[in-house]
Amino acid sequence: MSQEFEVIGKRIPHLDSVPKVIGAAKYIRDMVLPGMLYGKFLRSPHAHARVVSIDTSQAEKLPGVKLVLTPDDVMRETHPIGLTFPKHQYCLHSEVRYVGDEVAAVAAVDEETAEEAVNLIKVEYEELPAVLDPEEAMAPGAPQLHEEPGNIREPKRVRIGNIEDGFRQADHIVKARFRTSRQAHVCLDAHGCISSYDPATGKLTHWSPAQSILFTRLDIAEALGIPASRVRVITPAIGGGFGSKAGTFTHDVAAALMSRRLGRPVKFVLSREEEFLASRTRTPFIIEAEAGLKKDGTITAWREKMVLDSGAYADMAPWVAKISLGLIAGPYKIPNVWVDCYPVYTNKSISGAFRGFGNEAVSLAREALLDIAAGQMGIDPLEIRLKNIIKAEDIPFTTSAGLVIRSCGMEECLKKAAGAIGWDKKRKPHSGVGLACMVGWSGEKSAFDVDFSSAQVEIAADGSVIVRTGNSNIGQGLYTTLAQIAAEELGVPLEMVAVVGGDTEGTPPELGCWASRSAVTTGSAVKRAASEAREKLLRVAGNMLEVDPQDLMARRGNIHVKDMSRSLSVAEVAGAAYFTSMDGDAGPVVGRGVWASQTKPQNDDGYGHFTSVYVFAAHAAEVEVDPETGLVKVTRYVTAHDCGRALNVSTVEGQLQGGASQGIGLGLFEDDTHDKTTGQPLNPSIMSDKVPTAVDLPDIEPILVETVDPLTPFGQKGVGDVALHCVAATIANAVHSATGISITDLPITPAKILRALKEKNQGEI
Amino acid sequence: MSQEFEVIGKRIPHLDSVPKVIGAAKYIRDMVLPGMLYGKFLRSPHAHARVVSIDTSQAEKLPGVKLVLTPDDVMRETHPIGLTFPKHQYCLHSEVRYVGDEVAAVAAVDEETAEEAVNLIKVEYEELPAVLDPEEAMAPGAPQLHEEPGNIREPKRVRIGNIEDGFRQADHIVKARFRTSRQAHVCLDAHGCISSYDPATGKLTHWSPAQSILFTRLDIAEALGIPASRVRVITPAIGGGFGSKAGTFTHDVAAALMSRRLGRPVKFVLSREEEFLASRTRTPFIIEAEAGLKKDGTITAWREKMVLDSGAYADMAPWVAKISLGLIAGPYKIPNVWVDCYPVYTNKSISGAFRGFGNEAVSLAREALLDIAAGQMGIDPLEIRLKNIIKAEDIPFTTSAGLVIRSCGMEECLKKAAGAIGWDKKRKPHSGVGLACMVGWSGEKSAFDVDFSSAQVEIAADGSVIVRTGNSNIGQGLYTTLAQIAAEELGVPLEMVAVVGGDTEGTPPELGCWASRSAVTTGSAVKRAASEAREKLLRVAGNMLEVDPQDLMARRGNIHVKDMSRSLSVAEVAGAAYFTSMDGDAGPVVGRGVWASQTKPQNDDGYGHFTSVYVFAAHAAEVEVDPETGLVKVTRYVTAHDCGRALNVSTVEGQLQGGASQGIGLGLFEDDTHDKTTGQPLNPSIMSDKVPTAVDLPDIEPILVETVDPLTPFGQKGVGDVALHCVAATIANAVHSATGISITDLPITPAKILRALKEKNQGEI
Repeated sequence: MSQEFEVIGKRIPHLDSVPKVIGAAKYIRDMVLPGMLYGKFLRSPHAHARVVSIDTSQAEKLPGVKLVLTPDDVMRETHPIGLTFPKHQYCLHSEVRYVGDEVAAVAAVDEETAEEAVNLIKVEYEELPAVLDPEEAMAPGAPQLHEEPGNIREPKRVRIGNIEDGFRQADHIVKARFRTSRQAHVCLDAHGCISSYDPATGKLTHWSPAQSILFTRLDIAEALGIPASRVRVITPAIGGGFGSKAGTFTHDVAAALMSRRLGRPVKFVLSREEEFLASRTRTPFIIEAEAGLKKDGTITAWREKMVLDSGAYADMAPWVAKISLGLIAGPYKIPNVWVDCYPVYTNKSISGAFRGFGNEAVSLAREALLDIAAGQMGIDPLEIRLKNIIKAEDIPFTTSAGLVIRSCGMEECLKKAAGAIGWDKKRKPHSGVGLACMVGWSGEKSAFDVDFSSAQVEIAADGSVIVRTGNSNIGQGLYTTLAQIAAEELGVPLEMVAVVGGDTEGTPPELGCWASRSAVTTGSAVKRAASEAREKLLRVAGNMLEVDPQDLMARRGNIHVKDMSRSLSVAEVAGAAYFTSMDGDAGPVVGRGVWASQTKPQNDDGYGHFTSVYVFAAHAAEVEVDPETGLVKVTRYVTAHDCGRALNVSTVEGQLQGGASQGIGLGLFEDDTHDKTTGQPLNPSIMSDKVPTAVDLPDIEPILVETVDPLTPFGQKGVGDVALHCVAATIANAVHSATGISITDLPITPAKILRALKEKNQGEI
Repeated sequence: MSQEFEVIGKRIPHLDSVPKVIGAAKYIRDMVLPGMLYGKFLRSPHAHARVVSIDTSQAEKLPGVKLVLTPDDVMRETHPIGLTFPKHQYCLHSEVRYVGDEVAAVAAVDEETAEEAVNLIKVEYEELPAVLDPEEAMAPGAPQLHEEPGNIREPKRVRIGNIEDGFRQADHIVKARFRTSRQAHVCLDAHGCISSYDPATGKLTHWSPAQSILFTRLDIAEALGIPASRVRVITPAIGGGFGSKAGTFTHDVAAALMSRRLGRPVKFVLSREEEFLASRTRTPFIIEAEAGLKKDGTITAWREKMVLDSGAYADMAPWVAKISLGLIAGPYKIPNVWVDCYPVYTNKSISGAFRGFGNEAVSLAREALLDIAAGQMGIDPLEIRLKNIIKAEDIPFTTSAGLVIRSCGMEECLKKAAGAIGWDKKRKPHSGVGLACMVGWSGEKSAFDVDFSSAQVEIAADGSVIVRTGNSNIGQGLYTTLAQIAAEELGVPLEMVAVVGGDTEGTPPELGCWASRSAVTTGSAVKRAASEAREKLLRVAGNMLEVDPQDLMARRGNIHVKDMSRSLSVAEVAGAAYFTSMDGDAGPVVGRGVWASQTKPQNDDGYGHFTSVYVFAAHAAEVEVDPETGLVKVTRYVTAHDCGRALNVSTVEGQLQGGASQGIGLGLFEDDTHDKTTGQPLNPSIMSDKVPTAVDLPDIEPILVETVDPLTPFGQKGVGDVALHCVAATIANAVHSATGISITDLPITPAKILRALKEKNQGEI
């Protein structure tokens, strides 16, 4: 498919892999600045309490301690954190709302002294009643965390069609209650920052592994009450984000405030225990789902009630709610869909953005309920899906929610996944083979009402190319993909292209790295910037060769006349361009590209939709369930994705494999749990909150279905976030196939399987 | 004149003055990187010699020494330095061509060890014949430094009109021989760099107080043979450039090469002695000038022969030659001008760019010869100038060289300078009052055939503004001026604007900081970028207020309907703009501006001229000459400049005062001299090469003549370089007035005065 390209569509090793492999990449933990101090938090031991008094005198006396901050300082000197309104969270609180909530902070000459000082702070608490279950939190009389009644923050609903009509048309109605777990991101690279305020200039430089330097800059400026133009945010190397680094944290503001007070750089890095206690987690869902189907399997109605556990403060859970509803019908044509959704505060750590962004929960409910229905109705799960999905021949297809889909490889994904897993031969009772589908997005616009990227491409006098992006290279290989796009467009070797980014001062504005957006939005901006640069280059070359630029092409480091009669090297042309003023421009050839789209109003080019580009996938798994121990072993996993044109095959496959691995963790292993009465975290460590490793995973088999989307320059789609959406559902369906039982409560642990098997067997007796 | 503006035309303290005053600004000498090594050069003790052998064994054995580089390494691993062709200079040489030329280099753990190791290197030299006088260097049989015959590098000539006709029309012919001196820049901030090569990524980061980060990037990439896209150049704080930091130096390449070898940062900082020995100096001129005048003082012919002492390698002396010829006729209407100009190699340190860029020499010859003629012809020196100058009523005026001048305050400057010094009352024999005129440029295009700036303005969601420039803030207050322009254009308070620059990775391409160009070229680019941003802001505000953007204006932090009926704050609009996609754009409002012009072809908007904007000035001085000691005391100095609209009055006055001070140093004190036979530097220190201090200088009285140039957005012109052009001429004319003798050989020292007075008196006896 990609023969027409030189660099696009190949397997290209990530350009930053060598420094990472040899240990030369500098993560936030590795960074040291002259005169740098180390910050540590004192965290609440209670799920809900009022601070009666704080005695910092002993801590302040400890040699090496430079500052002890209390909630009073913070209330006086800062504003609340975050992009959502109303905002509740400061970097320290005198009313603490979860075990781990920040009460005081210390800056000292080294980490050990800071830790020791934290332990010397004496706090008297008055314990308050805590609420730990989101459904209980909604009930009348429950303890209130903030001003929103019933602890409900921004409820949402969907009303497509007429749900009563839909159920009336149904021959069969199926319902179930699902629960997803509080998965921790467990990035290899911990959260942290270094903040350095220069009292002489009033300027703050802040190093943070942020997924959006643009919003981190705004958040910090707002929290400190200084102009954003005096805040510079720079990313060090980043070892994974998965959504966890998409916000601004208490440590960002505490470090900035301390540095402003002290005039020295202040560094915070969370310990692994703090990562579990006090960084964000996946937002857990409770979903009560009910579907109506005709005899032939056609879905006529879909109704859900969702309750989201936001934890103690509103980080992104309200957005998770909003976005989960956007594609609630999945890849199916369902005429009647009603959903009510409630993000709820509880006295637990904050939940927010995590790969899937609610779609893993929505997919579980949808795909598992469909398998339950198929089982009850005696229809093959593959057939019931093929019956309902949007197909290539429907394109362009407008969903009942009004979304316009312009490319769709759903059927091909489903057939290829089924074919690869051997569906026809294996699918029989207790085969342990399951599958699930999904639809996702590239760069959704509903959270911010808009999506935008911009990029700059500069060609130096030697023909080498600098691509500037404001996006963060969080570990997924984005900068390699951007370099490929520029190299392809300019016809230069990949080695001549350098991508620089992650610095609010030096790089063009960019929303950030999330939502499977970067290859599509940043990639499109780079394509446009490189095209503009190429056009300028061809104009200069046309001038030099006395040829119409239309008759020129850029390829393999040269600008050729199309009949190949004459050529100049890109270096010759780029060098001449410095000293040639054409159309009021001179100097290095610079191209700029912007990609922006908004939710409203809608129009024909995808501008007005929830997302411009829809991504489809079907996953299939084969599992063995040990009836004695309840252990689930995934023996095969096939992940077939409609990824549009794969820009870098290695990157796409890596994302699919990573997403499946993380999804298997969600499905089978991971849950960051709290004691149901005290709210104490029960397993804040990798030892006790098991993340799957290579021995827990099969080889994951990626299948690339390369539809070419008409709205993106190469037809590419994004695969980062979406790679996880239907993994837990696939596992649940495979376990259902293997055992005949539906575990609807993640993770699907041996204990739950044994209990369900016992109940089933008792029922059968 | 500037009442219409809020921020432009005021006296604004430099935004970087606080960090400089309190010692917080970090110059290259202050910077320390982890693992950094210190580099030192071994320099030639001979003016011309061949290296027979180098023994580095003792140096290499010294503990703490990490690397000793020899010319062989350099020839094998690098290419020659600099922008001129052919290139002769490497960072080390096995044939040394001046006392101070680099022979070997050491990198060690500290400066002392590096110094000690340098002293342990044993070199055997074969001395070669040296040539130290440029006229001797041109003679047949002189020692040859490079391949160019007669040691002449790129001779230039001017042929305007018919010189024989011009002299035939003359009633009076006057001639004299002038010589300007080898003035050292003596920046407060020494030359140096830190180069840090990352072996894992192949990327070189180079901190240098460079006047052009763009060309330093290219030079280093070329010298090392790596793509420019893998070289990042960043400026630290810069304590003055004056042209001396407009090139790339041996230490830049040596540091980069050593860092590439060692994988550690390597720092070089020149000692004050090395600054004199081996950084650049002003290019000394020998000028034989001859003028023809009619009885009434009208100049009919001007002929010169110039010999420029380029020193051992061709740095910018060929460009100094070219540019000196561009405005050879000065502010006068002279129909016939012939000049021959020869840049010549000698076995002395390299001369190059220095404020004036040859115009100080051309001005001296022109203005002093005119005073000699006026004296001989009995015409008042003010009258002879008023007779010949281009006047405001001549505008637009096309010179005999084809230059088009669109604004001219020459007459006003001359009359105001004369008025301020009390010309009418004081001008009598031996009054000690002298004056001189000049014409200069803002942003000349002849060196590179093109001149370009680009800028970016970003408005953050809180209404604060980031201005990005690739230009360097070398100490003159440029960034304050750029902030004013953006604040004025956007109608926001100056405190909300931050200017960032001096980083090839983060800032838009820009030629560099020299030639009185930055306020005009970079200022125009910032104006255009801010205008584009303002237009976008008004469009968003129009959308919000439901008003035609044409009916809106930005002023004092608000966007108003012009009838002042309604308004929004810039922050409200800029914040809304993030989330509003208009015309395919979204996110922070970003405006971009480019300013570019080229030498050929010429056209009506100044595009094709040597410069777009011409700057005029008249200076007047009053001096006392002690006939016993020959000491000259400058008692008053008036510097009247046609500066266009003064954007920041403090900055303009500062430039005029600084230029006059440095020019008085050139006129009376400074010369970096070499022994005439051995080429040994005779006074490489501030003690022996006297730079004027406050006690040597009068209060310098600036007069601003604010013509408004039609080609620049505010009518501004540049004043940095031009502030010095006619200072030495003014001093020479004042001394002539005081003593009746013409000292045509700079500096005008007491010894020269006493000798001339003695000769004159002997003549009179």
